[in-house]
Amino acid sequence: MTHRSRLTSVLVDVPSADHERAVAFWTRALGHEGRQAKQFPEYHVLGEVTPGIEFMVQSTGDDSPRIHLDIETDDVDAEVARLGALGATEVERLNTWVVMHDPVGTVFCVVEVQIKDAFEASATTWD
Amino acid sequence: MTHRSRLTSVLVDVPSADHERAVAFWTRALGHEGRQAKQFPEYHVLGEVTPGIEFMVQSTGDDSPRIHLDIETDDVDAEVARLGALGATEVERLNTWVVMHDPVGTVFCVVEVQIKDAFEASATTWD
Repeated sequence: MTHRSRLTSVLVDVPSADHERAVAFWTRALGHEGRQAKQFPEYHVLGEVTPGIEFMVQSTGDDSPRIHLDIETDDVDAEVARLGALGATEVERLNTWVVMHDPVGTVFCVVEVQIKDAFEASATTWD
Repeated sequence: MTHRSRLTSVLVDVPSADHERAVAFWTRALGHEGRQAKQFPEYHVLGEVTPGIEFMVQSTGDDSPRIHLDIETDDVDAEVARLGALGATEVERLNTWVVMHDPVGTVFCVVEVQIKDAFEASATTWD
């Protein structure tokens, strides 16, 4: 069975007390107003700030601001297993996605397909 | 005078001792072998991992791994001034780029145009 994946999102994660001013800055910095995600209101979704890459500002319980990436895939379990074999570690499963650490400790998530046209156009196929 | 800008790069920054395994992981995770940058060998450039977004793994003197973003522009000084007016602060000027902090302290850089076709196709114009 093959599956596919690609980089789909960039997320600026900030403590909840800083969320409003981070949203104000990044929406104006990138010129995309965006909207609060309905199902997960801690995410302000700017949309595709460049074709094929969605940008979000997430309110977290964490003290340190950081940026994390999302990799979208048509098979989350297969992609988590593939990245695990490359040295990533699973941190936790949340809703439909999986939080992972790269071998150095950088956070990223494996998510379901978010941007269908970009996924079809440019995802990499893994055997 | 107007100028333009867009999000152009995502960089995973790691302590130099971790650079080799971060490069090994991200090149295989994203399926882009890439190359060490000639002029600045601390950058391993994976190229456009999705059209219009370049991905790099940078070796830093810093202890904590992080991700930072580059915004490309046809007028670095005007873009730094625009982002400064939105609440960003200038950290330092290095070669042709400027390191900045967003209002919450997240690091990003303002750089010269890196991906000409994507810049022409999707940069935002600022008055």
